Amino acid sequence: MPDQNLSSHFLLDPDIIFLNHGSFGACPKPVFQQYQNWQRKLEKQPVLFLGRQYHDLICQAIQPLAEFLGTFPSNLVFVTNATYGVNLIARSLSLQPGDEILTSDHEYGACDYTWEFLCSKNGATYIRQPLPYPAQSEDEMLELFWEGVTSRTKLIFLSHITSPTALRLPVEAICQRAREHGILSLIDGAHAPGQIPLNLDQLGADFYTGNCHKWLLSPKGAGFLYAAPAVQDLIEPLVLSWGYQTDPAKSLGSRFLDLLTWTGTHDPAAFLSVPAAIQFQQEHHWQQVQQDCHALIKEYLPKFSALNGYPVLYQHENQYQQMACIEIPHMQNLELFKSQLYDQFRIEIPTIDWNQRHFLRISMQAYNQASDLDALIGALTYMIPIHVSM
Amino acid sequence: MPDQNLSSHFLLDPDIIFLNHGSFGACPKPVFQQYQNWQRKLEKQPVLFLGRQYHDLICQAIQPLAEFLGTFPSNLVFVTNATYGVNLIARSLSLQPGDEILTSDHEYGACDYTWEFLCSKNGATYIRQPLPYPAQSEDEMLELFWEGVTSRTKLIFLSHITSPTALRLPVEAICQRAREHGILSLIDGAHAPGQIPLNLDQLGADFYTGNCHKWLLSPKGAGFLYAAPAVQDLIEPLVLSWGYQTDPAKSLGSRFLDLLTWTGTHDPAAFLSVPAAIQFQQEHHWQQVQQDCHALIKEYLPKFSALNGYPVLYQHENQYQQMACIEIPHMQNLELFKSQLYDQFRIEIPTIDWNQRHFLRISMQAYNQASDLDALIGALTYMIPIHVSM
Repeated sequence: MPDQNLSSHFLLDPDIIFLNHGSFGACPKPVFQQYQNWQRKLEKQPVLFLGRQYHDLICQAIQPLAEFLGTFPSNLVFVTNATYGVNLIARSLSLQPGDEILTSDHEYGACDYTWEFLCSKNGATYIRQPLPYPAQSEDEMLELFWEGVTSRTKLIFLSHITSPTALRLPVEAICQRAREHGILSLIDGAHAPGQIPLNLDQLGADFYTGNCHKWLLSPKGAGFLYAAPAVQDLIEPLVLSWGYQTDPAKSLGSRFLDLLTWTGTHDPAAFLSVPAAIQFQQEHHWQQVQQDCHALIKEYLPKFSALNGYPVLYQHENQYQQMACIEIPHMQNLELFKSQLYDQFRIEIPTIDWNQRHFLRISMQAYNQASDLDALIGALTYMIPIHVSM
Repeated sequence: MPDQNLSSHFLLDPDIIFLNHGSFGACPKPVFQQYQNWQRKLEKQPVLFLGRQYHDLICQAIQPLAEFLGTFPSNLVFVTNATYGVNLIARSLSLQPGDEILTSDHEYGACDYTWEFLCSKNGATYIRQPLPYPAQSEDEMLELFWEGVTSRTKLIFLSHITSPTALRLPVEAICQRAREHGILSLIDGAHAPGQIPLNLDQLGADFYTGNCHKWLLSPKGAGFLYAAPAVQDLIEPLVLSWGYQTDPAKSLGSRFLDLLTWTGTHDPAAFLSVPAAIQFQQEHHWQQVQQDCHALIKEYLPKFSALNGYPVLYQHENQYQQMACIEIPHMQNLELFKSQLYDQFRIEIPTIDWNQRHFLRISMQAYNQASDLDALIGALTYMIPIHVSM
């Protein structure tokens, strides 16, 4: 069970049973304090901070993140969030008529929209290969997914941990096979960093984007984009600024870094606080926290199954870590169900409508405890019969 | 002369003579406090704040900004900065071979790069029409600029107040004539809001983007994009997210607002603090501050002219407001000159290399006083002879 004292390190409202770390994360106090300190520093001398120190500060913040992610700082830039990273790569591809982007049917809706928009604009096709849920074994998922590949597949886009179904996909095996077939790969790691160990250089994706503000606990608006050295030159910035023609004496070392490091005046404090978030996790034995949270979910999944009469949605316990879905009966009004969970039981948890099925997505973080899940069971026991008979 | 007490309202280092408001602005304490309060509020319940209250909060913040800018909230969205706004419109245009974008030779370098990149990618041409400096009358500038228009001119891009030359361009007359000729117009108002009065609906531009974090005094990372109703459907978001297919019951009222209001998880505190910045200016008689700052520049421009032996760069005093350039002799090492001004005299001021000529760009803000300009005169008297003879 997670060390209960860690909840005092967070700024979350203690009156809420917060089972939705997954949507927007939560930032510990010492990280948040650093965040606001960076902002005060900036305001003391904006020209010094943004005009002369910016690149050095960003490089200093990227360094520990690169180490944390298992890559070199030269392969990494900060972006606001993973959606930004996905859009940036999607726009960079120069999609042509006939091109195919292959993905699963477990992806984040906003990213589905991004690809649908750009594919339809350019005459390309976005193919959502169905993957079963409850999940099958990694090998079975790999083979099922690969049935969607054709000679026109330009890029494979997959979440490392899916948003609607909290499923860890076998992206390592898929990226490796994609590379063998000359197919580009982009992994959306929105939920990965801080929840599962990452080694981006070994993972084998061409592009990998992730959030720091979810499971890595940074302030909001900090994500990253990784690009393997061989494909960095494919990239076009969404917002082009001074980096387009950098004085060689001031170059950060590559076109990739020069183009993407500065995109106009903004508050970089969220980026600069990422090292503090990494440090917080290190100081609080995060591997243990992750394992404790995972163990709690593992213990409760069968209880929810018994309650709702649906099977556990994961075949192996390595298919989820701190976030997992439970299936619930199909509701007439899922939104009302969710708002009543919040209003009547103070439980913040996302309801999910996926392929005509309804789920709750549970997140377990350092500030949670078993009693939070007991409260959810109590609420569901009361609420579900009412809503099913509505 | 500006009310000297206002300097105590800012967070700027009192040991620096800060003559560069123009680059990154400066945020007053009460506005900054609101900024950080919004962030604390967000962290107390991130799902409530970002998931359920976000659109209402943004609409509440847009309302006073729309009023301030003389337009309707339905024509306005927040963006991070004006560079973002320029990139967004430039990408939305679907430039074709042969298209021409007409601009002046006084534009901000990062925006020049944006257009050069997208034009060269699409076979279009970016034409920088020369405008004399010292500036001529508005009518003369209008006619000189219009000589660059051809039958292929697709869009006119101009700064309202130019960055390297601090020159207010006659954008009202140019936009009006552009509309009569069926040419689109985009005005980069990075330096306009808070420095000169704006009425976007009357101004006549199709698109207008500006910063709130410069002269309007908001925290960093708050800008806006205006689009006239007739051209809103031309717009493509840089980052596409959930707004691509909005539930009609949750629509903000238009495709324009739905597409651009939410672009993934970020910290919206800078946007939400814009009303506090407007309020700060209203409470501190900002029209008087603007006039006082302007009067101080007007008084000192001839002194700098006498010192350096160059004419005043403005024909009329309505061609600048709180920011103006002075010409200085051509330096061997302009960067060294600038850093010595800072290191030896603690003067923060931008040096500008424009068309093989060198300028200093003076900003006067509520926290400045005459003695700041006296200090600059003293420093230049000492430094320029040394640097010219280098």
